[in-house]
Amino acid sequence: MHLVTSDLEGVFTPEIWINVAEKTGIEELRLTTRDISDYDVLMKKRLAILKEHKLTLADIQAVIAKMSPLDGASEFLDWIRSRTQLIIVSDTFSEFAGPLMEQLGWPTLLCHHLTVNGNGMVTDYNLRQPSGKMKVVRAMQSLKYNVIAMGDSYNDTEMLLAADKGVLFKPPRNVKEEFPQLPVAEDYEAAKQIISAAMGF
Amino acid sequence: MHLVTSDLEGVFTPEIWINVAEKTGIEELRLTTRDISDYDVLMKKRLAILKEHKLTLADIQAVIAKMSPLDGASEFLDWIRSRTQLIIVSDTFSEFAGPLMEQLGWPTLLCHHLTVNGNGMVTDYNLRQPSGKMKVVRAMQSLKYNVIAMGDSYNDTEMLLAADKGVLFKPPRNVKEEFPQLPVAEDYEAAKQIISAAMGF
Repeated sequence: MHLVTSDLEGVFTPEIWINVAEKTGIEELRLTTRDISDYDVLMKKRLAILKEHKLTLADIQAVIAKMSPLDGASEFLDWIRSRTQLIIVSDTFSEFAGPLMEQLGWPTLLCHHLTVNGNGMVTDYNLRQPSGKMKVVRAMQSLKYNVIAMGDSYNDTEMLLAADKGVLFKPPRNVKEEFPQLPVAEDYEAAKQIISAAMGF
Repeated sequence: MHLVTSDLEGVFTPEIWINVAEKTGIEELRLTTRDISDYDVLMKKRLAILKEHKLTLADIQAVIAKMSPLDGASEFLDWIRSRTQLIIVSDTFSEFAGPLMEQLGWPTLLCHHLTVNGNGMVTDYNLRQPSGKMKVVRAMQSLKYNVIAMGDSYNDTEMLLAADKGVLFKPPRNVKEEFPQLPVAEDYEAAKQIISAAMGF
């Protein structure tokens, strides 16, 4: 039996932090792991920025609620769900993803979560476990699933390589070049074809 | 972080085989593990009955498509999905569950599958793995989830006991009596209260 695990941002939704930066006008929130490679340093910086601008979780959720999934994402997601099982794995936080997951019809999402204080301010972040995406693939394989994994960026490649079939979705050029063994889908139609073939349709 | 695993039939939908028996008028399809305790003997008998009556998978799916989830099931399911993550674990077959899962908005379902020949006849069944429900709980715990499990019958108790919190949903009296350590929810409202308390709301 097959099962698809997929990254969220870049596959079904836009990048959340970049959108929050654009919609709040706080340019510093655009920083990514390309700018600050240490994720812990980056996240602590982001939380400090939120605090400085007195942005509560509710404020950020209101901004995220105005975002939409990528064009065609809902249809693609339902195409997968009506043919096999889908688990979305992400390095986002469940509190941020909520408004987007609702628009996508609440697919299962395994990700991280935030610590929020009594005033609604985000005070800390909690990673579920290291190598979280890859470990979901291993857990599903332990349940005898043949796993097809999809993701767009460098931090997905550990998961894609652990899967029975890994697919790069619209990856940046450097990722494509570094992992020539992974098939590339530049749009949902191409992804459907790769998934169908992997499932033996 | 919390995650709910739940049985399907008896919690969100009626019993599929019993409904197929009623809707096709084939009384023998009412047999359950209460009548034939060896599941393999029971399933081989069911498949022989389908063959005898020349019922294809498409015929059975058409019957199942006329079934509806239990009253309030969709709302309860969305209540769970909007608060935490849900994985449905079942001893049904993905080919049978499809029409009901569509009505429930495609929640993630981990179950078994059928072998179907070129004429659309069901020729065999494939169990994903022994103790499949319990192993899903263990897999989710390995991903650092605190698992709340829900089920209605004897074959769910292994999963409920493995979970961090097990809940019996409308169980038969003998199951309730044999497992007094498991809290019982007689309806969705009671189940919501138990889940909310387990999640610390």
